[in-house]
Amino acid sequence: MRGFYIGRFQPYHNGHHRMVEEIVSDADEVVLGIGSAGDSHTTRNPFTAGERVMMATKAVAEFDVTAYAVPIEDLERNSVWVSHVQSMAPSFDVAYSNNPLVIRLFEEAGVEVRQSPMFNRTVLEGAEVRERMIEGGDWRSLVPDAVVDIVEEIDGISRLRQVSETDANGEA
Amino acid sequence: MRGFYIGRFQPYHNGHHRMVEEIVSDADEVVLGIGSAGDSHTTRNPFTAGERVMMATKAVAEFDVTAYAVPIEDLERNSVWVSHVQSMAPSFDVAYSNNPLVIRLFEEAGVEVRQSPMFNRTVLEGAEVRERMIEGGDWRSLVPDAVVDIVEEIDGISRLRQVSETDANGEA
Amino acid sequence: MRGFYIGRFQPYHNGHHRMVEEIVSDADEVVLGIGSAGDSHTTRNPFTAGERVMMATKAVAEFDVTAYAVPIEDLERNSVWVSHVQSMAPSFDVAYSNNPLVIRLFEEAGVEVRQSPMFNRTVLEGAEVRERMIEGGDWRSLVPDAVVDIVEEIDGISRLRQVSETDANGEA
Amino acid sequence: MRGFYIGRFQPYHNGHHRMVEEIVSDADEVVLGIGSAGDSHTTRNPFTAGERVMMATKAVAEFDVTAYAVPIEDLERNSVWVSHVQSMAPSFDVAYSNNPLVIRLFEEAGVEVRQSPMFNRTVLEGAEVRERMIEGGDWRSLVPDAVVDIVEEIDGISRLRQVSETDANGEA
Amino acid sequence: MRGFYIGRFQPYHNGHHRMVEEIVSDADEVVLGIGSAGDSHTTRNPFTAGERVMMATKAVAEFDVTAYAVPIEDLERNSVWVSHVQSMAPSFDVAYSNNPLVIRLFEEAGVEVRQSPMFNRTVLEGAEVRERMIEGGDWRSLVPDAVVDIVEEIDGISRLRQVSETDANGEA
Amino acid sequence: MRGFYIGRFQPYHNGHHRMVEEIVSDADEVVLGIGSAGDSHTTRNPFTAGERVMMATKAVAEFDVTAYAVPIEDLERNSVWVSHVQSMAPSFDVAYSNNPLVIRLFEEAGVEVRQSPMFNRTVLEGAEVRERMIEGGDWRSLVPDAVVDIVEEIDGISRLRQVSETDANGEA
Repeated sequence: MRGFYIGRFQPYHNGHHRMVEEIVSDADEVVLGIGSAGDSHTTRNPFTAGERVMMATKAVAEFDVTAYAVPIEDLERNSVWVSHVQSMAPSFDVAYSNNPLVIRLFEEAGVEVRQSPMFNRTVLEGAEVRERMIEGGDWRSLVPDAVVDIVEEIDGISRLRQVSETDANGEA
Repeated sequence: MRGFYIGRFQPYHNGHHRMVEEIVSDADEVVLGIGSAGDSHTTRNPFTAGERVMMATKAVAEFDVTAYAVPIEDLERNSVWVSHVQSMAPSFDVAYSNNPLVIRLFEEAGVEVRQSPMFNRTVLEGAEVRERMIEGGDWRSLVPDAVVDIVEEIDGISRLRQVSETDANGEA
Repeated sequence: MRGFYIGRFQPYHNGHHRMVEEIVSDADEVVLGIGSAGDSHTTRNPFTAGERVMMATKAVAEFDVTAYAVPIEDLERNSVWVSHVQSMAPSFDVAYSNNPLVIRLFEEAGVEVRQSPMFNRTVLEGAEVRERMIEGGDWRSLVPDAVVDIVEEIDGISRLRQVSETDANGEA
Repeated sequence: MRGFYIGRFQPYHNGHHRMVEEIVSDADEVVLGIGSAGDSHTTRNPFTAGERVMMATKAVAEFDVTAYAVPIEDLERNSVWVSHVQSMAPSFDVAYSNNPLVIRLFEEAGVEVRQSPMFNRTVLEGAEVRERMIEGGDWRSLVPDAVVDIVEEIDGISRLRQVSETDANGEA
Repeated sequence: MRGFYIGRFQPYHNGHHRMVEEIVSDADEVVLGIGSAGDSHTTRNPFTAGERVMMATKAVAEFDVTAYAVPIEDLERNSVWVSHVQSMAPSFDVAYSNNPLVIRLFEEAGVEVRQSPMFNRTVLEGAEVRERMIEGGDWRSLVPDAVVDIVEEIDGISRLRQVSETDANGEA
Repeated sequence: MRGFYIGRFQPYHNGHHRMVEEIVSDADEVVLGIGSAGDSHTTRNPFTAGERVMMATKAVAEFDVTAYAVPIEDLERNSVWVSHVQSMAPSFDVAYSNNPLVIRLFEEAGVEVRQSPMFNRTVLEGAEVRERMIEGGDWRSLVPDAVVDIVEEIDGISRLRQVSETDANGEA
């Protein structure tokens, strides 16, 4: 049984990690869909798909399970979203999400969805991590060590701070 | 003489129906352009183009006139919008709209536009219908019977409520 | 029961008409999907989606059945093609096609497909009609009268001849 | 040495002109990238790329330097933005910008960027010009004479006022 | 009066130059539309839009006339091609072309087109120049000196030879 | 040191496997870019990106190295191809390819490329595998066991045969 879990992972943090841990107890294999794959260098989406693939892959290595980290580009067309995800990812049996839109789309397509109270916190935690990165707070304790290494390797804090200045000022 | 009337029709409601009735007194044939055709499953655009084609086609059947319901995809390029609409729709002689942008684009392209005080209300009525659908109010009295049947057939109320939860919560 | 039949309809001709007649004996309503909707002004696709919507709508008016003519844009992504078609068209129960790719895609999506020996001829007839239009042969006997009127109204023969000169010469 | 300066130029105004003057003292040739090239007929982007190419070309004619005005379409993909700009524009050695996102993208690509306190004012001046155009204020004193001629030639004030009505009212 | 001339300019060669010379005797200003702007690094389209903008701009500098070199991206939608070109280029009164498709599209849009026997040769000359570049023949005598300089500056011959090897071998 | 190897992997076969084996002796980590990610259900590209991700991941599991299998969508814009690949994939130091276009693009971007005589055979082997699949020949001996399992699990032979009938007949 293969489980599917989609998120933006900007960055992959401990909230995501707890979710994966829960899915791993449920499924034999896990597919992490890296959504908004074409977005990067913004306050809300600072890291490229490739950088997020590295974060996710290194972080889930500690679980003894076959995992796939797959970038999913936005087609901006909800009616074909499920088909698109199914074509980009290894075939999966169950999707894990608390997002009402995602749940509805999977339900209309006849795909089983499992929800978890844990999911709601991932949105808030992602914004919190990015805010601490910008403000110089303690972001490292909110993400797995492997992610700390990657963020530092790609000069991620500096990038996030620079591009968030644009969001504050508008643009030329 | 063929008249053209574009809207999102989310859903097709009595305000649209009164407009079509007015156009039908003016023209021999009517083309309903279903705008934002690629959008669906959102609070503002809950229904697919196909569902809206059904609504419009069934509703205008009561008028004894040849009518076309044609989905128009967004190209997100105002400078070619008129050409795009003209290529997707049967050729028309007059466009009916109160939308200043639409009027300007048609004027610059040399297409005759007719306005009507009735148009302004269609925007408000669309939002009102969707709000009542979400809140459990009386939406059925705001739309033709044919539309009631279709919305119920496609489980439309349930879908709109579910996807509007995402709009309230943000997303994962 | 609603049947779905997709083709390019360049132009809508008697082969298509016989197919629709067969489907009408089977289904209560018919949806004609006008494929390659964004293509026009080429030898293989001379007419716009709107022109083809007119041809199909006028031609099928003789059958006493509710019919929809809906342009379907190419997303160039086979894996989401069925979902895309389902979102652009009124919901249908059966698809009619002999095209192996179309049949496979519908089968993988769990949609019932009916085949007919009549289908193979539509490809050849379409090319034959366009060739006669270019060469000055008798194309009128290969299409319904309503289509003759529309092709002449839009100066279709002149257009096809002009654009086919490009195909012969290459381009600048 | 060729300098590159990107902006929306809606319209090209005196703030832009002072910047170009500064760049011209620095570089042998100047490339003006007309960003958001596909956008037009909105309050924030009223003029087409072609209209802005005319404004920029006529305005910079007074400087005795080879200048290029090149429309740059949005690919909405920051990670390839620099490559895209480099493929659309004559090769340049230095980019001029104060926009943090633009600076970051060029820096990550190894392209030299020069900043100037003058840049910040161009954003504000653009909004000011458009507001005066809408409100009937004195916009002519904020732009070069060549731009006044072009805006009047293309009926630009009338267009901006009409399309800004849509932004106020929402749309149908 | 502004004249418009579109081509791929791969590269800008003496055939194009003779055409521009003819147009310059006709018009006050010239707009060169650089078509297939997004294409590069292929046998048929080796140079980027920016490189072709440089070639065209430098080459036409010898004529004492205001000239614009504007990249035009392919929208792959013939029905909006004229509107697209009109939005990307300074407004023009006359288009110059012998390409039947281009002529038809302008005619349907009501834009005046002028033809010239000179045009047919530009297609053949473009292919001839690229072939000589690949085979080591005398390509320099087929293009203006300014173009020779640019092609050598961008290492153009080496690029064309390398990418044409792919066209011969197919790809991985 | 991370190596990057791009191919269509339709399907992942022994030729690819030998290349990966060679790269693994060279690099610490391997990134497999699954090109033409959006293509599927054709004779030349029968399998979806997700199916190819499964094949590649399972096959390279036998090498004791961290491997990433990442779908790369076609942007159809060679000038930004390298940037696009770099944004979708974990950062890599060396690219492995014999494809002249790929080599040229990486060289122009300053990325080190290593070639291997082994590469040329992968193109021919891919076509050979698909041909045997269609004709009922021995394709299993040309691919790793893990790939055999996946192809059978997804009913791949049946699909390839069906869609290749379309390629033979043209389409409706």
